[in-house]
Amino acid sequence: MADDDQVILLDFWASMFGLRVRIALAEKEIKYEYRNEDLKNKSDLLLKMNPVHKKIPVLIHNGKPVCESLIIVQYIDEVWKDRSPLMPFDPYERAQARFWADFIDKKVYMPTRRIRTTKGEEQEAAKKEVFEIFEILEGELGDKPYFQGEAFGFVDISLITFSCWFHTLETFGNFSMEVEFPKIIAWTKRCMQRESVAKSLPDPKKILELAMERRKELGLD
Amino acid sequence: MADDDQVILLDFWASMFGLRVRIALAEKEIKYEYRNEDLKNKSDLLLKMNPVHKKIPVLIHNGKPVCESLIIVQYIDEVWKDRSPLMPFDPYERAQARFWADFIDKKVYMPTRRIRTTKGEEQEAAKKEVFEIFEILEGELGDKPYFQGEAFGFVDISLITFSCWFHTLETFGNFSMEVEFPKIIAWTKRCMQRESVAKSLPDPKKILELAMERRKELGLD
Repeated sequence: MADDDQVILLDFWASMFGLRVRIALAEKEIKYEYRNEDLKNKSDLLLKMNPVHKKIPVLIHNGKPVCESLIIVQYIDEVWKDRSPLMPFDPYERAQARFWADFIDKKVYMPTRRIRTTKGEEQEAAKKEVFEIFEILEGELGDKPYFQGEAFGFVDISLITFSCWFHTLETFGNFSMEVEFPKIIAWTKRCMQRESVAKSLPDPKKILELAMERRKELGLD
Repeated sequence: MADDDQVILLDFWASMFGLRVRIALAEKEIKYEYRNEDLKNKSDLLLKMNPVHKKIPVLIHNGKPVCESLIIVQYIDEVWKDRSPLMPFDPYERAQARFWADFIDKKVYMPTRRIRTTKGEEQEAAKKEVFEIFEILEGELGDKPYFQGEAFGFVDISLITFSCWFHTLETFGNFSMEVEFPKIIAWTKRCMQRESVAKSLPDPKKILELAMERRKELGLD
């Protein structure tokens, strides 16, 4: 790609989906313009660029939009393919990477969201579900340094963006990720040694403040 | 790939997800062993090959499993890349193809399922939702022969497998796809001219019989 490519990211600062794109762009050292959206009053540009889902993140590359975070990350990897490959080279390993990213996409968001937006029995059920999901993920990670093996990649990007929300989950769910899922936390620390991750992820305390505000709006506390 | 590759498909004959894999395998002219699963009594092989989701379809290629229909279709396209390409060559077009296949995956199954497994207000709400989704799809198809343009591909495979269920939807939902979505039906007929599609899709009357049996089991009729 040419150096004068125009890249714009429509995003929301705390979004685990938008963060995936920010980490992929950082891995590839791509310069871009960041636009933080007010999700309660979405911009005309966002509605025009993602008329189907009307959601962030949207990557606008030379005027053309790409939507859905995992699709954007694959697009970035395919366009800027000369550096920091994110997808494995082998088709079978690539299918496995897509499988786990898809699993994370389908299974992690909703129950973790319910831990911070519900209480009582509903919250307990969500916590049980989160534990089951992370047990599966901890099993898949095993003793590998990263989900795809020796190198940081697509599956790591899919999951690591939830880690800045762990403090919030622990606070509302009353548990310790480190005690329950030591391998996931060791992997989180490993990922945080990468500049692309460390510089992209927001402060967990700011995430907690945001989650507390939302809980108040829901009349839960 | 070598001619002595061993390919096994764990599937269920009426599954719109399994059918995607069957069409992709037919497009690529790949010989394989078909194993129809009893979904009420899943085989040990299925549970071993897809321990996470425990769902069909599973493609077992030389003993190694690939799960989730859209991931399997991409895998097939990447492994047998010397014939009948299913994904566009250009990264932007590939991202768009993934976007629409993902949209179909997330939006079409659940409301179409509810049309045949509910009644009254719930069924009417499902019908409204199905109409909204197909309006978006009809708009995206426009006057193109296929979703990706001139050539049959990934997005077509993602959606065409629902067409053998249209007769069932029309029967339970009391509407005509041809009247409501003429472009989708013209596209369906175009796809049915392909041997890979025509030979894979089951008879819509058999699908209706299956759906009627399930409705009886649910105590709806």
